[in-house]
Amino acid sequence: MGMVGGGPGAFIGAVHRMAAALDGEIELVCGAFSSRPEKSKAAGENLYLPSDRVYDSYKDMIQSEKELPEGERMDFVSIVTPNHLHFEPAKLALENGFHVVCDKPLCFNMDEALELKELVDKTKLLFALTHNYTAYPMVKQARRMIEEGAIGKVRKVVVEYPQGWLSTRLEESEQKQASWRTDPKRSGIAGAMGDIGTHAENLAEYITGLQITELCADLSTFVEGRLLDDDGNVLLRFDNGAKGILHASQISAGEENDLNIRIYGEKGGLEWRQMEPNSLIAKWLDQPTQVMRTGVGDLYPEATAHTRIPAGHPEGYLEAFANIYRNVALCVRSRLNGETPDPIYEDFPTVDDGIRGMRFIETVVASSNSDQKWTKF
Amino acid sequence: MGMVGGGPGAFIGAVHRMAAALDGEIELVCGAFSSRPEKSKAAGENLYLPSDRVYDSYKDMIQSEKELPEGERMDFVSIVTPNHLHFEPAKLALENGFHVVCDKPLCFNMDEALELKELVDKTKLLFALTHNYTAYPMVKQARRMIEEGAIGKVRKVVVEYPQGWLSTRLEESEQKQASWRTDPKRSGIAGAMGDIGTHAENLAEYITGLQITELCADLSTFVEGRLLDDDGNVLLRFDNGAKGILHASQISAGEENDLNIRIYGEKGGLEWRQMEPNSLIAKWLDQPTQVMRTGVGDLYPEATAHTRIPAGHPEGYLEAFANIYRNVALCVRSRLNGETPDPIYEDFPTVDDGIRGMRFIETVVASSNSDQKWTKF
Amino acid sequence: MGMVGGGPGAFIGAVHRMAAALDGEIELVCGAFSSRPEKSKAAGENLYLPSDRVYDSYKDMIQSEKELPEGERMDFVSIVTPNHLHFEPAKLALENGFHVVCDKPLCFNMDEALELKELVDKTKLLFALTHNYTAYPMVKQARRMIEEGAIGKVRKVVVEYPQGWLSTRLEESEQKQASWRTDPKRSGIAGAMGDIGTHAENLAEYITGLQITELCADLSTFVEGRLLDDDGNVLLRFDNGAKGILHASQISAGEENDLNIRIYGEKGGLEWRQMEPNSLIAKWLDQPTQVMRTGVGDLYPEATAHTRIPAGHPEGYLEAFANIYRNVALCVRSRLNGETPDPIYEDFPTVDDGIRGMRFIETVVASSNSDQKWTKF
Amino acid sequence: MGMVGGGPGAFIGAVHRMAAALDGEIELVCGAFSSRPEKSKAAGENLYLPSDRVYDSYKDMIQSEKELPEGERMDFVSIVTPNHLHFEPAKLALENGFHVVCDKPLCFNMDEALELKELVDKTKLLFALTHNYTAYPMVKQARRMIEEGAIGKVRKVVVEYPQGWLSTRLEESEQKQASWRTDPKRSGIAGAMGDIGTHAENLAEYITGLQITELCADLSTFVEGRLLDDDGNVLLRFDNGAKGILHASQISAGEENDLNIRIYGEKGGLEWRQMEPNSLIAKWLDQPTQVMRTGVGDLYPEATAHTRIPAGHPEGYLEAFANIYRNVALCVRSRLNGETPDPIYEDFPTVDDGIRGMRFIETVVASSNSDQKWTKF
Repeated sequence: MGMVGGGPGAFIGAVHRMAAALDGEIELVCGAFSSRPEKSKAAGENLYLPSDRVYDSYKDMIQSEKELPEGERMDFVSIVTPNHLHFEPAKLALENGFHVVCDKPLCFNMDEALELKELVDKTKLLFALTHNYTAYPMVKQARRMIEEGAIGKVRKVVVEYPQGWLSTRLEESEQKQASWRTDPKRSGIAGAMGDIGTHAENLAEYITGLQITELCADLSTFVEGRLLDDDGNVLLRFDNGAKGILHASQISAGEENDLNIRIYGEKGGLEWRQMEPNSLIAKWLDQPTQVMRTGVGDLYPEATAHTRIPAGHPEGYLEAFANIYRNVALCVRSRLNGETPDPIYEDFPTVDDGIRGMRFIETVVASSNSDQKWTKF
Repeated sequence: MGMVGGGPGAFIGAVHRMAAALDGEIELVCGAFSSRPEKSKAAGENLYLPSDRVYDSYKDMIQSEKELPEGERMDFVSIVTPNHLHFEPAKLALENGFHVVCDKPLCFNMDEALELKELVDKTKLLFALTHNYTAYPMVKQARRMIEEGAIGKVRKVVVEYPQGWLSTRLEESEQKQASWRTDPKRSGIAGAMGDIGTHAENLAEYITGLQITELCADLSTFVEGRLLDDDGNVLLRFDNGAKGILHASQISAGEENDLNIRIYGEKGGLEWRQMEPNSLIAKWLDQPTQVMRTGVGDLYPEATAHTRIPAGHPEGYLEAFANIYRNVALCVRSRLNGETPDPIYEDFPTVDDGIRGMRFIETVVASSNSDQKWTKF
Repeated sequence: MGMVGGGPGAFIGAVHRMAAALDGEIELVCGAFSSRPEKSKAAGENLYLPSDRVYDSYKDMIQSEKELPEGERMDFVSIVTPNHLHFEPAKLALENGFHVVCDKPLCFNMDEALELKELVDKTKLLFALTHNYTAYPMVKQARRMIEEGAIGKVRKVVVEYPQGWLSTRLEESEQKQASWRTDPKRSGIAGAMGDIGTHAENLAEYITGLQITELCADLSTFVEGRLLDDDGNVLLRFDNGAKGILHASQISAGEENDLNIRIYGEKGGLEWRQMEPNSLIAKWLDQPTQVMRTGVGDLYPEATAHTRIPAGHPEGYLEAFANIYRNVALCVRSRLNGETPDPIYEDFPTVDDGIRGMRFIETVVASSNSDQKWTKF
Repeated sequence: MGMVGGGPGAFIGAVHRMAAALDGEIELVCGAFSSRPEKSKAAGENLYLPSDRVYDSYKDMIQSEKELPEGERMDFVSIVTPNHLHFEPAKLALENGFHVVCDKPLCFNMDEALELKELVDKTKLLFALTHNYTAYPMVKQARRMIEEGAIGKVRKVVVEYPQGWLSTRLEESEQKQASWRTDPKRSGIAGAMGDIGTHAENLAEYITGLQITELCADLSTFVEGRLLDDDGNVLLRFDNGAKGILHASQISAGEENDLNIRIYGEKGGLEWRQMEPNSLIAKWLDQPTQVMRTGVGDLYPEATAHTRIPAGHPEGYLEAFANIYRNVALCVRSRLNGETPDPIYEDFPTVDDGIRGMRFIETVVASSNSDQKWTKF
């Protein structure tokens, strides 16, 4: 694996590296960690990389690695830069035959998204988007339960993503994470909705297997002087007639990272909360509520295959993130060996999820600016 | 106290009686428990009432009691009939000088509501509406904290009222509660929104001290053949610029009675859930979350005055309900004694809350039928 | 009902009155609320009692009420005084043909306990001891599940009763509750173990249907100058071979009233916590944990008969307390009518539970003073 | 790092490898993964190791690695075999100048333990024992709070470790984990008490900074035919006068891995549960309970230094385990560089914790067999 971005001060770069390392299937072999060559060098040194594989730019990296003999060069590129810097390296990687793992949202705008999609379709390379929350085992369990009809036809979905860390004008300080996320030049047309709303949208569609068909959004910017939305409330309609609510916020003071979802069907309901990810609550019509847990009882193989340790030994965010990397690694290896991967491992978010996410961003922003009640997704 | 309604098969009548009895301040002295005289008689007998004070109709009751000497006759009327039968007895009671405790929603439609309001204003009699959920001590604590600025200016409100008991077509069975609640002739123009959505609206406005100014609603009827909404999702805007979400549902399969609210301000957030009503969660910017509890620490007198027993001895739904009756009793007694009641005890929902509730019903139904995004409240 | 004790400053007297009033089956008709006549009078007036039935002493009350014609006199006596004042009024009431409801623990020492037991056996009058915690519906559900073998043979019991309110020397202040509970002249030979340890013992034996056969106790007095234990840890052995732990504490700083129990059998486990009493957690070998709730699904009739309102409308401490009073009332009425009561309503703690409790107090104190590991119960 | 044990079917070997890999500071360079050479080879291959560094035995490994030039050979040995196979490789590693990371309990019996202690003292090599639970950030936070007097003098400690996975005679099946843990030849004189009781003991002493001075134990074997204890209840006394309870069980049916601790001092209490490890509950005398969370507010540097990702992104068991490896790696590197490590990173369990654990095992077994109440620790 070669990494683009993730130098000093970055949060998500370190996450990607830990996630990639966890299962012993992936080795970080090179990187272009910063647009400033000296910073990239320093980062590479800290990561125990040989200096000749720490590059000044992603262009250098892709070019140089391509020239290395097969078996020596990196197998895929991991892109962990801010949103506006996803497209170019992803495109170049694909054009040069490298698989890509890319942080979300997919890119900066819809045009870029569609071009990437086209390129992935053409090259048939692997493209994984790190919507890491759908990689939790109990999310996969929920998806399979719904697919098998455990709760009957879905009627209502409530998906929430409240955070509070941008309750004040943190972007005024030196806080690098706040700074680019609230900057339309680096983040795109949406703030909270792009950063975390897309996770909520991805989670809702992944678990239910449904698609949002129209929505009605009310985005707000509560912190004075901020340039992008820091809160948004959205009514949803799904393609099977289900209704829903999605809200995401970075001004919900005191909330940490409380992504959660409730899905109600004709026969029962499911509830999952990211901050206690090893539990899945199943509710039934006039029957005791069940607390399903990773490692306990007859879970679907999709859940079991994404769990590492026995029940009661909590796995968390990094393990879910690592599930994407592990799956990518197994699929890359299958390709290298000319094998067909187990479909269970092919289950990671792709460029198609990225397209949905970019369209979600465009649609909520359009809806929020409209007097019309419903905007088509 | 004289009771109208609450005969065999009724749920809320028994609740009112237990609530009235709990604190030893109120005695049930008469009643017209059913529109069928023999049922009313039987109910009265079960309640150990003398047969001459069990009446065939509320008209008889109000007339006969009025003729009794002061000190012997009932002091107020408690109305616990279905929605369409609130107006007439309430009106008659007021016209004859009796205070009224009335179940919610206030009545059947806006015209009735306004007429009652006028009558209350004219007679200056007490009129209590049993929006019992705002009578929990930790709700009062939350209201006072917000009033005193503990969480700063309110930005976002999320209020939810999911139930699952109408996930199937229960009204087809003999279930009396389901039957009238889903019948437009007895319930009015709204189902879930009237029955429980109004509680959510009342809770949100009571706690925050804010008023909803416009809303955007999407009501649904998921159970085939049902005549009224069984689910509704609503975007809210408040008079101080805050945004919100209200959703209420009776098809959220597996949910019991999970009324809950989260309020986020500039400095912190509050969370309260009816199913664990003795806790109030206070969240802060980069400080540990606090679990405030009835009976623990320095709470506002408004909370303490509505708590009966020490910390860790859970009080519940009936105790909150009883808080309204106890307050009414104390206010009635003050009037009888020519005293001014402690303002803490004057805190119960009135006809004005009833007007807000009826307007909420009208507005959500109108909004749901409209293509326009926002409907003024 | 006539009450002994429960005057100004008392906590438990008011609890008994609310519990007795809740279901409309019991009327407080007389009382001797304090050993000081003027205090008794004042209390009676506040309770709207006619002055001729507010007595100067329990002796007066029992004597005078006995002389009233049947149907007018009180049906039973409720004793809510400190421990050292249970025996005399209970004895006198029984000797004069009145049923008794008595607060726990039964009395001051074992001699008194055995004398009361003999008297109850002889008179065949009803004697209810208000071990109120076993009157919660989900405790009854747990008991029945274990009886029916749901979790298999019981192996381990962990019962805890931590409170923190005596972490400081509160008895030095004016706090009446602290004062008598820490005074050996009024409380007996045990402090925390008598006050709350007996509740834990009663709960463990009631739910499991087992009896403690030997125990090993380590009692402590952590607050300097205190005369009785304020904390105790006890190893238990049961008559079926099960092992257990009981600990009770009034110096567990920050705990409110967290009585809780876990029982593990060969096939599963049950967990119940008084502070969230409407839930019963059922755990199973490699199956999802179940959250059983009052009002949800097929519960045993013993649970349902002790629940008043639908699922999700929390019932609490007063409702459980009221279950004892309601059951006593129904049993008294059955006797008055010459009927056999439904066995479900005969389920309340009796003088036999009182004997167990007194023996528990004696045994833990003896064990704590012994160098020998096990002391027979 | 070179690994001893951890071949096919092993649970804890994979845990050690993931923990070592997570932070990118440690590379697995060699191993003797099984006592059967062909199994060791296969394991090494799966781990992408060069075949010449996959050894037939730990003796080979230590010998051969020692002969490699500095900088190429492994820096330390990780021992992940069953208890009876800790001593020999640990001893050999120390004698040959390698640091050691060893799974717990330290070894098979007290003699071995003391010999290892002597060797560590003599060689001054690093010896880390993977009592991983004390490596959670909120455990370190609790320890520091108590050290600083936040809850005052400690009075009571309740530490529990219930599991249910050995409720049936699992060792009869092919289950490798159950098999060696219940076998006195491989596990030692204790079953549950050795496997998980030692974790509880380590946690209690680590957090409180106190030492157990005497105890009273009641160990049981509930599953027929089992050769070692599967449950144990223990009364504790600490060196400052505090009292406590420790219980550990593998027959608590339905429990996963619920290690938890509550500590009560004069001013407040702390509660931590391994299954929700990112929260630390702080309870106070008549003040709201606080939920302290990793990443939120002013935590001690010891907590922060053992946290990787922001608040609300749950870290779990592997991350805590990895904290030990990361700290060992930093200390090894400091030694290689001739530097003094930051004391924060020197905080991992050592051979001294191992000695305490072995003594705990001996003492609880002796106490359980004794009629005497207290056995000195």
